[in-house]
Amino acid sequence: MDFFYEFASTYSYITAMRIAPLAQAAGVTVRWRPFLLGPIFKQQGWETSPFNLYPAKGRYMVRDCERQCAALGLAFRLPEPFPQNTLLAARVAAAVMAEGWGEDFSRAVYRAQFAEGRQIGSPDVIREIVRDLGRDDAVLAHAQSDAIKQKLRGATEEAQRLGIFGAPSFVAGDELFWGNDRLEQALAHAKN
Amino acid sequence: MDFFYEFASTYSYITAMRIAPLAQAAGVTVRWRPFLLGPIFKQQGWETSPFNLYPAKGRYMVRDCERQCAALGLAFRLPEPFPQNTLLAARVAAAVMAEGWGEDFSRAVYRAQFAEGRQIGSPDVIREIVRDLGRDDAVLAHAQSDAIKQKLRGATEEAQRLGIFGAPSFVAGDELFWGNDRLEQALAHAKN
Repeated sequence: MDFFYEFASTYSYITAMRIAPLAQAAGVTVRWRPFLLGPIFKQQGWETSPFNLYPAKGRYMVRDCERQCAALGLAFRLPEPFPQNTLLAARVAAAVMAEGWGEDFSRAVYRAQFAEGRQIGSPDVIREIVRDLGRDDAVLAHAQSDAIKQKLRGATEEAQRLGIFGAPSFVAGDELFWGNDRLEQALAHAKN
Repeated sequence: MDFFYEFASTYSYITAMRIAPLAQAAGVTVRWRPFLLGPIFKQQGWETSPFNLYPAKGRYMVRDCERQCAALGLAFRLPEPFPQNTLLAARVAAAVMAEGWGEDFSRAVYRAQFAEGRQIGSPDVIREIVRDLGRDDAVLAHAQSDAIKQKLRGATEEAQRLGIFGAPSFVAGDELFWGNDRLEQALAHAKN
């Protein structure tokens, strides 16, 4: 099953923190697919997060995430400003996914951003996250290479072709599922 | 607990068909609150349903509703055109809620619209629904009175004051819950 996630997405944070044990219990292999929602939102005429464009929805999202996280024993804190620029984080994730620590890196970025409210748009913060994972921060330069830029662009274009319009999204066979609330259903479908 | 619903809302249909036994099991009294999303969407700059404005989201919604309804043993069919004009249906619901058959009328409207794909924007269809419930269709004229118009307008304004931006929405104490997916959580909160 493919798990498409955007680092600025609060509900992707919740999924990222709970998907591994659920997938293991279901016997489903999950492919983590970082992508960017920005270009997809732009095509819909949105220049920022819908949670900023529609304030009532934004206020509700914060309260809903607080409740969902509390039930799961997760901290929740919105960084200032929201959304953060997630381009570098997504490129690093795309760069290291094949090296076997992409999931750990992604969870660490989410934790820094939405549990600790840190500025994950800052290269310094990303560098610190990489070092805290015991990895070489040369990956930050590698992440800015044309090959990695193209890899991330390709994932975003593929998401768009698949009809993805938000995050997290799950693709299992011919079925698309949207939202942390559909994680269990997506895994059940992928299992069959 | 207050259950705010808009007749054009597909996810409100799913909630309307399943809320009564769940509320009874939880020992929660539910107040059915028909309202209009149109004026709220207009304030956000939307002239029609977001499912029409954002086609990828609209296609996904149909598939998601098909899956959710199949799991619940409910039929699902989108009427043409979508959304239907729901003003008359909402006014009739507002008119008869105090008479004790507002819930039955609302479920019948949802069934006609989203199980049978009927034109609930048409007064003839609403009249037929009223008659099939064994009720006097004089209520259609009464529903167009200033008192009822004002009642429905008041419900919509109250929804907006409560921060409601979509349907179904549930209000229990100080907490707002949005979406059919939050029905169980809202009932659990209302129970406490």
